[in-house]
Amino acid sequence: MDQPIALSPPTYADVEAAARRLEGVAHRTPVMTSRTANARTGAELFFKMESLQRTGAFKFRGAYNAIAALDPAARSRGVVAFSSGNHAQAIAHAGALLGAPVIVVMPTDAPAIKIAATKGYGGEVVLYDRFTEDREAIGRRLAAERGLTLVPPFDHPHVIAGQGTATKELIEEVGRLDRLYICLGGGGLTSGGCLAAAALSPGCAVYGVEPEAGDDFVRSLAEGRPVTIPVPKTIADGAQTTTPGAYTLPIVRETAAGVVTASDDALVDAMRFFAERMKQVVEPTGCLAAAAAFADGEAGALAGQRVGVIVSGGNVDLARFAGLIAG
Amino acid sequence: MDQPIALSPPTYADVEAAARRLEGVAHRTPVMTSRTANARTGAELFFKMESLQRTGAFKFRGAYNAIAALDPAARSRGVVAFSSGNHAQAIAHAGALLGAPVIVVMPTDAPAIKIAATKGYGGEVVLYDRFTEDREAIGRRLAAERGLTLVPPFDHPHVIAGQGTATKELIEEVGRLDRLYICLGGGGLTSGGCLAAAALSPGCAVYGVEPEAGDDFVRSLAEGRPVTIPVPKTIADGAQTTTPGAYTLPIVRETAAGVVTASDDALVDAMRFFAERMKQVVEPTGCLAAAAAFADGEAGALAGQRVGVIVSGGNVDLARFAGLIAG
Repeated sequence: MDQPIALSPPTYADVEAAARRLEGVAHRTPVMTSRTANARTGAELFFKMESLQRTGAFKFRGAYNAIAALDPAARSRGVVAFSSGNHAQAIAHAGALLGAPVIVVMPTDAPAIKIAATKGYGGEVVLYDRFTEDREAIGRRLAAERGLTLVPPFDHPHVIAGQGTATKELIEEVGRLDRLYICLGGGGLTSGGCLAAAALSPGCAVYGVEPEAGDDFVRSLAEGRPVTIPVPKTIADGAQTTTPGAYTLPIVRETAAGVVTASDDALVDAMRFFAERMKQVVEPTGCLAAAAAFADGEAGALAGQRVGVIVSGGNVDLARFAGLIAG
Repeated sequence: MDQPIALSPPTYADVEAAARRLEGVAHRTPVMTSRTANARTGAELFFKMESLQRTGAFKFRGAYNAIAALDPAARSRGVVAFSSGNHAQAIAHAGALLGAPVIVVMPTDAPAIKIAATKGYGGEVVLYDRFTEDREAIGRRLAAERGLTLVPPFDHPHVIAGQGTATKELIEEVGRLDRLYICLGGGGLTSGGCLAAAALSPGCAVYGVEPEAGDDFVRSLAEGRPVTIPVPKTIADGAQTTTPGAYTLPIVRETAAGVVTASDDALVDAMRFFAERMKQVVEPTGCLAAAAAFADGEAGALAGQRVGVIVSGGNVDLARFAGLIAG
């Protein structure tokens, strides 16, 4: 019932290969702990801070791995991506580091700061009107015309394998986990994390966490087929995907313990917790996993457990951040 | 010309003794780097994040060291401190960890959140009217009545030695420094840092950084005697001291390369930089050292240098933080 796929699905061996490519390039992000968070949940929580990753989000891992895995000829022709968010900056920066030209297709109404950041990393930005044009068609046309390789934001074996290295590092650093919460948009971070957790901490229950309004994975798992939802209204702008990936959904279905959701109010509460107690700026999407862990902990479901929480990113406009935490 | 002192001034041996007491108790806070900060200054900057210290500021180091150094009888009688800021929480938490009763004398108009935090760490709070009562007199009376030991916020050899461990850790982790900028209020962090830098990185130029409005050290060094200024108006509420300490001033005078100042606008700029680029919540006082490093770097004074920056704390009310970064 899944969409057709062209490459073999990724395995843990691909996560290990990605880790070798990322060695010395991606930051080995810190794992933070908080006595207050532990007291709040009755658990021992380990926060993997991908907000402190290069370009401010985990996306750098998958983008770099995908470009590094290209053969030299393809790499020198370059890559194309469509994104208005963290994937755009990640692919632009990774391409610059690897000597691959990068084109990013972004909507004309993308925040100027994100367009500037993508250009700042050396990417060429092609704008499109998201009300009248199809970004995928533009990307594919550019790819065909210039011989570029399309690097999708999540649904690609090398991207998934790269994202899995965050969970690999977390478990290698802190040891066996009982549970692991991962922020879930298109499912790259979650499915990569599933592969790593299954290999390194067998029996660990992995939960993907979607925005309440953007529950395409929850619905797809319930219905046994990929479900497409309208663009969800949520402050978690990095998780506004409308349908699971052809690679990511099967991995999550077969390996994760489940997918749960978090409300926008719970995201703001977690964002305030990170700022006030842990002195960290985390973007709304990056709060998904923590919000679910806090809710489950407060319901008594985590008593005495060792729980991993992947914090996916920290890229949020300061004025917007200020408005959200001011309450 | 200095004020009379009762105990021997601290030396680097006292910093080493403090490090042994703090081992496994204080966090060995992370050293962060930022490519953007390096590009901005032409230097290699190493930020020692005491905002991630227990109780959210470096003050925990000195408070714990001072209480741990007491003989068992004095420790069980307890300690008293007067503070409305980070020292209050630090002394309350350190006392609780060491089994020493703690009384903190705070003004009746202190923020409720700070009173609650001090009580939350197990401290007894005694309120006074700062317009009609003298907190030092109250503290000394309580000390006499109950046999308590007064732990001052900065001007004490054990407090200075404890604060010096932040610089000791920084240099041990990153190696030799050409320059070191340290946030300067009463001078505990700076004078302790001077002792550590002189021992571990001889030739390193240490600069204390005061708020522009609170330049009691600058004036005292210029005039060759301790100068008292009115309570300064600045957003750096942790550095509103009005006169240098009897222990701290001589160490700074003899060991530091100088004391410079930072304007409130420069503090806000640095706070925004920390939040936007490094995803860190830093309180205004904690931005003093970075603000001076950025200014000197932009003036070309740091080209090619290895520069340490001690970020002193991250305790800022969220609404206030939001207002400052929203610009």
